[in-house]
Amino acid sequence: MNDTIALLMNHRSVRKFKQEPVTEDQLAQIIGAAQMASTSSNVQAYTAIAVTDEELKRQLAELAGGQAYVAECPVFLVWCADLYRLQQTVEWHQPGAQSQVSSTENYAVATIDAALAAQNAAIAAESLGLGIVYIGGIRSNIAQVSELLGLPELVYPVFGMCIGVPDQEVGSKPRLPLSGVLHMNGYDREQSKEAVKLYDQTMVQYITERTGGQRTASWSENMAARLIKPTRLELKEYLHSKGFMKF
Amino acid sequence: MNDTIALLMNHRSVRKFKQEPVTEDQLAQIIGAAQMASTSSNVQAYTAIAVTDEELKRQLAELAGGQAYVAECPVFLVWCADLYRLQQTVEWHQPGAQSQVSSTENYAVATIDAALAAQNAAIAAESLGLGIVYIGGIRSNIAQVSELLGLPELVYPVFGMCIGVPDQEVGSKPRLPLSGVLHMNGYDREQSKEAVKLYDQTMVQYITERTGGQRTASWSENMAARLIKPTRLELKEYLHSKGFMKF
Repeated sequence: MNDTIALLMNHRSVRKFKQEPVTEDQLAQIIGAAQMASTSSNVQAYTAIAVTDEELKRQLAELAGGQAYVAECPVFLVWCADLYRLQQTVEWHQPGAQSQVSSTENYAVATIDAALAAQNAAIAAESLGLGIVYIGGIRSNIAQVSELLGLPELVYPVFGMCIGVPDQEVGSKPRLPLSGVLHMNGYDREQSKEAVKLYDQTMVQYITERTGGQRTASWSENMAARLIKPTRLELKEYLHSKGFMKF
Repeated sequence: MNDTIALLMNHRSVRKFKQEPVTEDQLAQIIGAAQMASTSSNVQAYTAIAVTDEELKRQLAELAGGQAYVAECPVFLVWCADLYRLQQTVEWHQPGAQSQVSSTENYAVATIDAALAAQNAAIAAESLGLGIVYIGGIRSNIAQVSELLGLPELVYPVFGMCIGVPDQEVGSKPRLPLSGVLHMNGYDREQSKEAVKLYDQTMVQYITERTGGQRTASWSENMAARLIKPTRLELKEYLHSKGFMKF
């Protein structure tokens, strides 16, 4: 295994950070690496907002569902899908033309662009000895987060990311067996089912050991419970209100 | 700059591959690294389909808009957002319960999960000396691609990825200035505009030199032209038909 793959395999979500800053140079390296991720036809349809202001971080921590580490990390990055910058170019060069910016395709493009860039940033940060955790929780109060950050129309916060010097040792959680996420030449439903069965055994053992028998639910039980819980049901309306996915 | 960041900075999209295989061990390392990417609440809502069958690759190359390298690369990965595997768990453990699987939030989660995993795969592949290119073109005929790969309901192909041993030297394309994609403590519209102006100058110079003056359009001109062109307008209806984003 080469060093880069070893780094990728060693990823853990870090939720406790030392009171040490992320330097300006580190942040520039992290975002510079993010920019080199692939982007659909060079549209670069994302913007990262680095939140370092203490009060702003505190408010975001609350809006993310009370996740203290959002306030405690030195830099909280909000990764936004950004079609506003692109729509501006239509207004400059094609005023009055019918823009396709609000298509579902462009929503997907911008969301994917943001995610690819963010993952490069995560890896760059970890290569510098920093720790990260993605924060989907900012979608729980997405309209308030957008307002707090002054996001224009056609910009939405996809997820947040805490970055800082780790102040905890975190173990690695087992993933699905390879057969669960890799199919050959077509989707194999039976293979998918068998992989979940195997993974359930792994995770029951893992969680039983880790909690001294306090928790014993399998992955599939947890996923089923999660999936019947109504979550972030206002996302569709919010996205429409920001100009996304109108057709 | 450390080695990992140097690798990230050195990314180029490769569209010409040697007739050398990607070994089973390399593929396992690539997907293993993909699996270690962050995933929302451990849902792991994606599946990669590795296409090695020559006839299948040829058909996908056509459906992607005639991109020959899809047929020529030894492994074409189709990265799918996969909520089918999760919905199965509801049917096992909560039969009859109202599932939230078709929410816009879950669509976003699965799409993001697929993108984060894919980007780890891209980096792992490049660390092994392989080259990659993302293929958004499979969304141009997404229903046919889905049928060809036997995708169940609640699974959709987000993008493809060619992997192979590079058989070309590719230059790096300039990206937006850092100020274009990194804002501090809030979205700055003026900063966004100034960054595009700067980038336009860079790109006009770049493209003029590269084409010997045959092409001189700025980035913003290209983006405006792109954005008024109707593209993949059937995506929304397709996603609904597969059970995504119903509410």
